[in-house]
Amino acid sequence: MRIAIVGLLLALTSVRGADTPQTSRARSVQQQVRAYREAHEREMIDEYLKFLSIPNTAFDRPSLLRNAQFIADMLRARGVAARLLPAPIAGVPPAVYGEILNPGATRTILFYAHYDGQPVNPAQWAPGWEPFRPQFVTAPAERGGTIVADWKPGDAVNPQWRITGRGSADDKAGVMTILNGLAALIGTGARPTVNLKFFFEGEEESGSPHLGAILGANRAAAAADLWVIVDGQCHFSGQKQVVFGVRGDVNVGLTVYGPRVPLHSGHFGNWAPNPAWRLVNLLASMKDEHGRVLIEGFDADVIPPTDAERRALAAIPPADAGFAAALEIPEPEVPGRSLLEGYMLPSLNINGIQSANVGPIAANVIPVSAKAALDLRLVPGNDAQRQVEKVVAHIKSQGFHVLDRDPTDEERATYPRLIRIDVVPGGYNAQRTALDSPAARAVVEAVQSTVDYPVIRLPSTGGSLPLFVIQQQTGAAVISVPVVNYDNNQHGENENVKVQFLWDGMETCAALFMMP
Amino acid sequence: MRIAIVGLLLALTSVRGADTPQTSRARSVQQQVRAYREAHEREMIDEYLKFLSIPNTAFDRPSLLRNAQFIADMLRARGVAARLLPAPIAGVPPAVYGEILNPGATRTILFYAHYDGQPVNPAQWAPGWEPFRPQFVTAPAERGGTIVADWKPGDAVNPQWRITGRGSADDKAGVMTILNGLAALIGTGARPTVNLKFFFEGEEESGSPHLGAILGANRAAAAADLWVIVDGQCHFSGQKQVVFGVRGDVNVGLTVYGPRVPLHSGHFGNWAPNPAWRLVNLLASMKDEHGRVLIEGFDADVIPPTDAERRALAAIPPADAGFAAALEIPEPEVPGRSLLEGYMLPSLNINGIQSANVGPIAANVIPVSAKAALDLRLVPGNDAQRQVEKVVAHIKSQGFHVLDRDPTDEERATYPRLIRIDVVPGGYNAQRTALDSPAARAVVEAVQSTVDYPVIRLPSTGGSLPLFVIQQQTGAAVISVPVVNYDNNQHGENENVKVQFLWDGMETCAALFMMP
Repeated sequence: MRIAIVGLLLALTSVRGADTPQTSRARSVQQQVRAYREAHEREMIDEYLKFLSIPNTAFDRPSLLRNAQFIADMLRARGVAARLLPAPIAGVPPAVYGEILNPGATRTILFYAHYDGQPVNPAQWAPGWEPFRPQFVTAPAERGGTIVADWKPGDAVNPQWRITGRGSADDKAGVMTILNGLAALIGTGARPTVNLKFFFEGEEESGSPHLGAILGANRAAAAADLWVIVDGQCHFSGQKQVVFGVRGDVNVGLTVYGPRVPLHSGHFGNWAPNPAWRLVNLLASMKDEHGRVLIEGFDADVIPPTDAERRALAAIPPADAGFAAALEIPEPEVPGRSLLEGYMLPSLNINGIQSANVGPIAANVIPVSAKAALDLRLVPGNDAQRQVEKVVAHIKSQGFHVLDRDPTDEERATYPRLIRIDVVPGGYNAQRTALDSPAARAVVEAVQSTVDYPVIRLPSTGGSLPLFVIQQQTGAAVISVPVVNYDNNQHGENENVKVQFLWDGMETCAALFMMP
Repeated sequence: MRIAIVGLLLALTSVRGADTPQTSRARSVQQQVRAYREAHEREMIDEYLKFLSIPNTAFDRPSLLRNAQFIADMLRARGVAARLLPAPIAGVPPAVYGEILNPGATRTILFYAHYDGQPVNPAQWAPGWEPFRPQFVTAPAERGGTIVADWKPGDAVNPQWRITGRGSADDKAGVMTILNGLAALIGTGARPTVNLKFFFEGEEESGSPHLGAILGANRAAAAADLWVIVDGQCHFSGQKQVVFGVRGDVNVGLTVYGPRVPLHSGHFGNWAPNPAWRLVNLLASMKDEHGRVLIEGFDADVIPPTDAERRALAAIPPADAGFAAALEIPEPEVPGRSLLEGYMLPSLNINGIQSANVGPIAANVIPVSAKAALDLRLVPGNDAQRQVEKVVAHIKSQGFHVLDRDPTDEERATYPRLIRIDVVPGGYNAQRTALDSPAARAVVEAVQSTVDYPVIRLPSTGGSLPLFVIQQQTGAAVISVPVVNYDNNQHGENENVKVQFLWDGMETCAALFMMP
């Protein structure tokens, strides 16, 4: 997720039901895990603060390697055989792999998290808040949070405090809850019956460019019946959720060409074609003023939600009103369409648009070109290449001559409507795991065992991850189990995790390790 | 004119007619002026190179003052009483004023040029070409011109060479041709019968912000029957032209608002409204894909060209094909509409458009806002304020709530379509002088006396100057007589003037001084 959602103070009532009793065995494991945690909180906090102190941005490769080694050491300290899985290119951050194999186990579950973080601009952080000096704060910066200045190592930690720092939520929290959930479980003497594997990636925030290669070179390690992705956020109500899919994603750049040089808007206005108008007219032909996509067949290949997915969606406490208030959105893009309905459909978004200049530096010119960046999200049934082809066909139907490079002089002089279309490499399809599959049921049951309200089952997030790649390469089912608070400013300044969510996440992971 | 038109090599046949004989008296004056010039060419060149060596960009006020003093000295050297007309604010470049009053004269003609130049970025100039070190070059830089390195002061000058430097064409050439036309006329012993006034401005390239105040404080000096603006370019065929008007101009900035913070295009795409789509749909509602403006009443108050203007337009050698080839324009914005037809109509141009980012730095976001800069050119009948009101009314008709400032949180939460409209201060109306007025006839006759082809009479250029202000403040007729070559790169790098155009411009000015 590339953008922080700041300031979302959502006071939505949680839904509690008496019809989802925890089993007494699960409750017993949870109570033991909690007791272990309460007894070892200070060591866990100490270790996590050290982990967060190691920088983890993409271009700091020595530090990324230190993170990987730190994780391997944490695995070994918990009695797990651990090793680094190098990428095929020197210098690329390795994955960290560990496994606990149980003789006689018939099923293997792999737990995934990532240790790298988004870039940071320390100047954008609140005064005294630093990306790689983790501290306790009383609340998010934008809601007046202050640093708990008198806390010292060994002091008790208020679970309502937050820990600040890059990666504190996304996704060192995944690593932390997996490893401490494991430590607690081992500490209680409970023993998983399945094979457990652990896989921690160091390039997720860069788009996982070498994940496929690492998986391909380590097929035995990557093999599992189920990958559990411990990443992402709990529902904004604070409730735990299980996420069964992601949308696919592909980006397309458009460049419409005008005259060869910038022209004086007085001397040539009304005569020389303006590429900004051409782009504007083209884009307007793609989506009407009610937000409906006008590209032929855009939704035609969508596989509609299954009955199980529909039921799950209907059971999710709606967030639309809360988001609308927090974000100051008077009405949704397509009136009457809910946030979750939108997740079940492909999207067409303008990420950006640009031609010449605006504001004080605008000049009276006919620009030479006009550009737009489009983002296409995909759902099951869509194919990235096919979806792009629909857009290209639409552009051609509007009279444009399409190129995949800059035009020659002759082409500029020949075609009144000339466009360059750049399909950004790395597009991929959606991934969805059936809600009624055995793996899905087992994961929901495990998470459910830790809470007394119905766990939210989200058929797909609106966002995207290349989980399709994992599914294709390993054949495993892939399900995400987020652990952190929603308002964590991930990817932005002042990233933070609420301590209580780390403790709850440990219990979630411990329950998942005990799946039958 | 804010943008250089580079590389326009237009080989258009000049139109010559036998029906426009020069009078023998005029021919005699012209021959004497030419003989004087040939005898004094080296001093004139020497003086012009010194003039061009004084920097004249807007923020170098000490140098602008030196320019003004240099001009005053040149006037005095020609026997003209000269003085500086200070602006009401200290430090603002003064105008330079001079006059030759003839006892018994019943008419007064004021000659205007400006001595300030556009900003320069020396790094963009060709190697060895410098904004304030004038040199002779063999051709424009973009057509392979080279510096005439062995030329020394006192050497003969090839009239096909060009002089490079900021202001060499725009508009120190106006000052130069006025003053040397005058020197030559005085040298020949000819004597104007009208009062002559000279007014040289130092803030034209900054939009003449204090011109009105200087005129208001010097009403007697500014008073004239006719202002002749010696600025702008000859027809691209090289032929002399007289220009009777300019379009008005007003700029409008638009900002459409989206959610309060940038949103993840996956998690909120299909639900949160995207301001870039809203702006695109709004702009597309203003102009159709054939370039026709859809705003109600946009052309309704246009005063159509007079019969005289129509005839003059019909007589102008069309440049459309030449421009289309040079600029690689396959067809005009409105198919079938010529360049000159367009000059007679108001225009609606997108100067620029911007929302978030495009290209490699595009992120998968729903942007917080989308901006456009519009340029509205005006013709007689249009009023700047009224034209803007039509645009605002159109925007309201598309469901937008209009503000002249950023929205409050409450407004953002209330209005689904929210726009800020900024009308850029300084807009002004068109100016046009009737082609069949006595002043117009006299000017054309004077210019015609210097050439044996029919002088081009352009009812209006497509560009804009605040000549409306001069007309309003002084009551004078205002007519422009350009002197320099079209391909002069004015406002851009490598500005230049072809020497022959300086010599021809002197003859034009001398003929104008002798108007009855």
